Amino acid sequence: MTEPASPRTKVRRGADRAVYETEQIHEILDRGLIAHVGVMTDDGPLVLPMAYGRDDDYLYLHGAAANHLLGTGVDQEICVTVTHVDGLVMARTPFHNSMNYRSVVVRGRAEKIDDPDAKSRALKIITDHVVPNWDLVRAPSETDVRKTIAIQVPLTEASAKVRAGDPIDEPDDMAGPWWAGVVPITSRFEEPYAAADLTSGADTPAGFAALAGRDTDDRP
Amino acid sequence: MTEPASPRTKVRRGADRAVYETEQIHEILDRGLIAHVGVMTDDGPLVLPMAYGRDDDYLYLHGAAANHLLGTGVDQEICVTVTHVDGLVMARTPFHNSMNYRSVVVRGRAEKIDDPDAKSRALKIITDHVVPNWDLVRAPSETDVRKTIAIQVPLTEASAKVRAGDPIDEPDDMAGPWWAGVVPITSRFEEPYAAADLTSGADTPAGFAALAGRDTDDRP
Repeated sequence: MTEPASPRTKVRRGADRAVYETEQIHEILDRGLIAHVGVMTDDGPLVLPMAYGRDDDYLYLHGAAANHLLGTGVDQEICVTVTHVDGLVMARTPFHNSMNYRSVVVRGRAEKIDDPDAKSRALKIITDHVVPNWDLVRAPSETDVRKTIAIQVPLTEASAKVRAGDPIDEPDDMAGPWWAGVVPITSRFEEPYAAADLTSGADTPAGFAALAGRDTDDRP
Repeated sequence: MTEPASPRTKVRRGADRAVYETEQIHEILDRGLIAHVGVMTDDGPLVLPMAYGRDDDYLYLHGAAANHLLGTGVDQEICVTVTHVDGLVMARTPFHNSMNYRSVVVRGRAEKIDDPDAKSRALKIITDHVVPNWDLVRAPSETDVRKTIAIQVPLTEASAKVRAGDPIDEPDDMAGPWWAGVVPITSRFEEPYAAADLTSGADTPAGFAALAGRDTDDRP
């Protein structure tokens, strides 16, 4: 890339890129299902899968009040990573194999949310992240909320990384006899089914029924 | 659970469970596509998605020789987590929402593999983890191998966790008017396509073509 013509241009380009990256980060987070959350423990790092949600400023996590990982993470630096695997990238030599993927890495200090209203809001954001359902079911009791820990991590240090497209092979390998290409990978929702103990006669909520056959990326 | 009848029974039951868990760990690892690898850095934990492979004793990771995460992890405790998301578990109240999933968490000290034969073997294991292809393409050169870092983590401290089935709701909520059930999620391979720069005329290798339409869990 050439150098920008002036500091002014540089600032503008930087700002454009920042806006782009924020939009990209939000999109990757919004389409994801789970995050892998890393904390430091006395026994080394610990990484566990968790549900999450976000607004413009924070990524939210929750768990049982006794949750070891979240309890360990409070007031500490944590890392929250969301990854979509989009395909196997098969090159002409293993050294250039790769995967197509989209990922976001959020690093920051985990803050416990104690204010009851803020906590309920965070829990609703997490609950409604994949498919809105908070308003369709029995509202959480005070006890439910008390038994839950909710934390937030600022999105200020979030970054996105995306790989897409074909393998990039060595010029010397291009004339070789080998195949090279991509095996796409998709993730999708299947037809919902009712719990065996469902006696209410309730229909599958329209929002859940509408997921069947859809790519998990492609949520309403 | 009741106490076992004797120390002997206890040992046997423990051993059975251990064998079961080892099989389960191997199966979850074998069906996974990527791992989330956590290391401790001066700026807190860092979690990134990576390819991996395994044999009976070790989980293997690789990257460019300058790979920040792996370089940081060498001779340190790291955590490698593999997760399959199998469904959304929608309960009668958000407090009991969950996901169905299978995950393995491996914690242990990362050991750099320097011996050239052991390193090539580890790279082949990683390369062939999702679909065997090492033997179908141009073998890595010595330079390729030198430019790559390979590490191993013992599987001795691996554990599996699986959630399956319906939501578990409160007895008091069972008579409520709400729906409860599961939205299954599957991941699958789509039809492979050739790289735009493929001029060799090579057919898609049979092993890749056979993946099309298959669940990523259900690999040959």
